[in-house]
Amino acid sequence: MEAEFYDWLREHVPSDPSWPLGLRDDAAVWKRPGGAELVVTTDLLSDGVDFRLETDDPRRAGRKALAVNLSDLAAMAARPVAATVSIALPRSGIGGRTPLELAIALFEGLLPLAKEFDVAIAGGDTNTHDGPTVISVTAFGEVTARGPLTRSGGQPGDALLVTGTLGGSILGHHFDFTPRVREALLLHERYELHAGMDISDGLSLDLSRMASASGCGAVINVDSVPFSEAVRNTEERLDRALSDGEDFELLLAAPVDVAKKIVKDRPLGCPVTRIGRLIQGDGLMFEKMFINPAYVEPRGWLH
Amino acid sequence: MEAEFYDWLREHVPSDPSWPLGLRDDAAVWKRPGGAELVVTTDLLSDGVDFRLETDDPRRAGRKALAVNLSDLAAMAARPVAATVSIALPRSGIGGRTPLELAIALFEGLLPLAKEFDVAIAGGDTNTHDGPTVISVTAFGEVTARGPLTRSGGQPGDALLVTGTLGGSILGHHFDFTPRVREALLLHERYELHAGMDISDGLSLDLSRMASASGCGAVINVDSVPFSEAVRNTEERLDRALSDGEDFELLLAAPVDVAKKIVKDRPLGCPVTRIGRLIQGDGLMFEKMFINPAYVEPRGWLH
Repeated sequence: MEAEFYDWLREHVPSDPSWPLGLRDDAAVWKRPGGAELVVTTDLLSDGVDFRLETDDPRRAGRKALAVNLSDLAAMAARPVAATVSIALPRSGIGGRTPLELAIALFEGLLPLAKEFDVAIAGGDTNTHDGPTVISVTAFGEVTARGPLTRSGGQPGDALLVTGTLGGSILGHHFDFTPRVREALLLHERYELHAGMDISDGLSLDLSRMASASGCGAVINVDSVPFSEAVRNTEERLDRALSDGEDFELLLAAPVDVAKKIVKDRPLGCPVTRIGRLIQGDGLMFEKMFINPAYVEPRGWLH
Repeated sequence: MEAEFYDWLREHVPSDPSWPLGLRDDAAVWKRPGGAELVVTTDLLSDGVDFRLETDDPRRAGRKALAVNLSDLAAMAARPVAATVSIALPRSGIGGRTPLELAIALFEGLLPLAKEFDVAIAGGDTNTHDGPTVISVTAFGEVTARGPLTRSGGQPGDALLVTGTLGGSILGHHFDFTPRVREALLLHERYELHAGMDISDGLSLDLSRMASASGCGAVINVDSVPFSEAVRNTEERLDRALSDGEDFELLLAAPVDVAKKIVKDRPLGCPVTRIGRLIQGDGLMFEKMFINPAYVEPRGWLH
């Protein structure tokens, strides 16, 4: 339903010259008259959808609520500044915790990550209700001198890169990932990147979005996709690396020589892998070595 | 539980020189190096707590979710700029509406108010879950040349003013109020105000907070409290004007001569009434004409 709703929104929310990206990217960019550009993003997580507090530690849920927002800032190559955190808690508690204990545990998970990335907690709202735990975070960041990294700057011929490894996030990575903020800032500063986003709904679906935003098609070389340890030894590893959600890795488009240099330089503490290219046209294709590319339907995890 | 949780937060959230008000006011103020001060506020509303979608029109709920945030910006005399809107929707819908219809209706209520106050919708996140409708709005604004209006600037001897009338908001005003943004900006620009906030939890409780933040006590002259039409002809009108929540009027502290001038000038399209004063000491007192002040326990609507 989210896709349909965004179609409605795009028709009904007026465009605003101070917000040139509108609702089209991982985060919104505010071009302040006379000031630096500010990046704003927001994600809402619910118990039963994004975590299960009957068994999951609420500290991990709280951490995740901030981490997914920081991943959106990383997607824009923005330096995190602050976040607001609003919570709705079940009146009768959950997992043996009262609402107050639950609120504290969520923050005990969130605050160390805020500290690690120098994010000020700029306010919040805490309520009890007759429903599951909901945690809504809005994060703010500032762009660097290079401006924001967007989804729409890719060009035919660009090489596609991903950080880290993909697939099987549900086995733990979706709680424990470190948002690629430092990696995005470093790459954006040192190299000429054309486009970027974070992989939250699966490589296949998210790449189709980036390609579409850039007015291109895309080819994934399926032999080069880096598998996470969680799926490496499974039969369905390719499907899972392409379609599992919540990898929270960076997907980047850059000129081929730049991409080669990044792969050679190894400037990050994690792998960077070349997994395909943008092409003229539209749609998403998979290619295997020695086999011609074939069009496919992007698949992923629709929130 | 919210008060206990904020005690915990104040102990555990590190203070940050770029956010001088911390978590102590209606909204947070970000002193950006070299930039204008930015004001950030957030409120989360739940079905069953802040509205009842089995009978209430979701358009009114959507409007309210933005309006309460704009009221917090008004409290700081900040000019609204933008808001993010995140929603969790019940999977099976409510009130005969599907989740998609519900999301659209919430926005149909919210967008006209955003337009009226020139608020850009800077993003959002829309999800379905097994729970009631939750709508979380984060709004931000810019302060004017006078800087933010805070709760803590009141001084002993200051007169207390309220805009509009008080009490009985539950009968409809809590949905239909117009946030006092224009009024706050006009008063803050033309007059020397010492302190301000919006009345969301009842005059008695909110005034006790402003007085405490200003290091003062306060006296309410109960004969001067302006009653809303909804409670004017009821026996419990005073109780309701003092303790009902969600009036969303402004409570201001100003030097006596300034307060007199505001009351005489009538610069707003709504009444401004002098209802008491700040005093040395602490606590909240009520006085009736010809009867000595007596200490009382602040009461209000604790969210």
